Amino acid sequence: MSAVNTLVLASGNAGKLNEFNQLLSPLGFDIRPQADFGVQDVEETGLTFVENALLKAREASLVSGFPALADDSGLEVDALHGAPGIYSARYAGEPKSDEKNNQKLLAALSECAEGQRSGRYWCVLVYLRHPEDPVPVIVQRSWEGEILAHPRGTGGFGYDPLFWLPDQGMSVAELPSESKNRLSHRGRALQGLVELLKVAHG
Amino acid sequence: MSAVNTLVLASGNAGKLNEFNQLLSPLGFDIRPQADFGVQDVEETGLTFVENALLKAREASLVSGFPALADDSGLEVDALHGAPGIYSARYAGEPKSDEKNNQKLLAALSECAEGQRSGRYWCVLVYLRHPEDPVPVIVQRSWEGEILAHPRGTGGFGYDPLFWLPDQGMSVAELPSESKNRLSHRGRALQGLVELLKVAHG
Repeated sequence: MSAVNTLVLASGNAGKLNEFNQLLSPLGFDIRPQADFGVQDVEETGLTFVENALLKAREASLVSGFPALADDSGLEVDALHGAPGIYSARYAGEPKSDEKNNQKLLAALSECAEGQRSGRYWCVLVYLRHPEDPVPVIVQRSWEGEILAHPRGTGGFGYDPLFWLPDQGMSVAELPSESKNRLSHRGRALQGLVELLKVAHG
Repeated sequence: MSAVNTLVLASGNAGKLNEFNQLLSPLGFDIRPQADFGVQDVEETGLTFVENALLKAREASLVSGFPALADDSGLEVDALHGAPGIYSARYAGEPKSDEKNNQKLLAALSECAEGQRSGRYWCVLVYLRHPEDPVPVIVQRSWEGEILAHPRGTGGFGYDPLFWLPDQGMSVAELPSESKNRLSHRGRALQGLVELLKVAHG
């Protein structure tokens, strides 16, 4: 492969950009945010995480002219038949609010006893070589946990204060970020992507 | 899991139905063709194999009320910048014709020397638990080969007479069907799906 391959990240999140660059720059990728190319957010009309990630990656690749990377993620709660799922970020409506989403989740589970509050975070990553790439690289990873009845911790974002990790004995919002990057759905999806790109580009 | 789980195959191909049943019935799945439930073919408007497979599986699950399995597959030829790709079955237009598709492929590669005719078959399988399942099981497998200048063999279907396997010293249309099921993009995708369903349903 050439010395540096530019890759557009279909996200405006600085934390994600940093995390992706740390893991992918050793492979010769230079990850650039979509804002550098004037890419606008697209409407997420898909019914699956992978379809929404593909919509975002395709727009980023189309506008920028470079290969693109996108993620889509959310929380699946068994007692709620999978909700909030692909609607996790907008569960309590627009404008998106972590606080309102967490309140809505607690209310939805108010009748639900301990031991019946299982769920999992999902992260789906796609890598599109060009806008019409028929075979994107796709990685899907989950992170099992339980939904707390009261928030704990101040780290992370999204539903992290309500997401209890039995193995760790703490919520994700209480977990040190180094551990989170190693254990989380997103961290392990990114590691999976790195393995697949090593094969494809190594 | 219960003794028998009905699963709808979003395809009208009897050969595929038989192949899927052979591998999945030991796991307790009873694979039924979508025609049993009056499922109609949907328009394949996706830009990737996985999006087209999801469209087919979603329709089959919606109409039948059961979990659904779909595949989408095609041929990617490097000298043609990936064509015919997701348009492989309809490369020479409608009505679909293997013969016309093969003729069009030969014509498109007529100026292309031996050693520059590399390509691969792709098969993408998806398993959807219900029409709004946000995290379908997805398996993507390829089969590397070269495009011949003249057809060889009478077995298989699609581009098989033009798809040369250097390791086997024959075209796919010359390969015994037992070997094809073991080596092919579809056979290995199906084996991959079985492994994933064992984890999810075992």
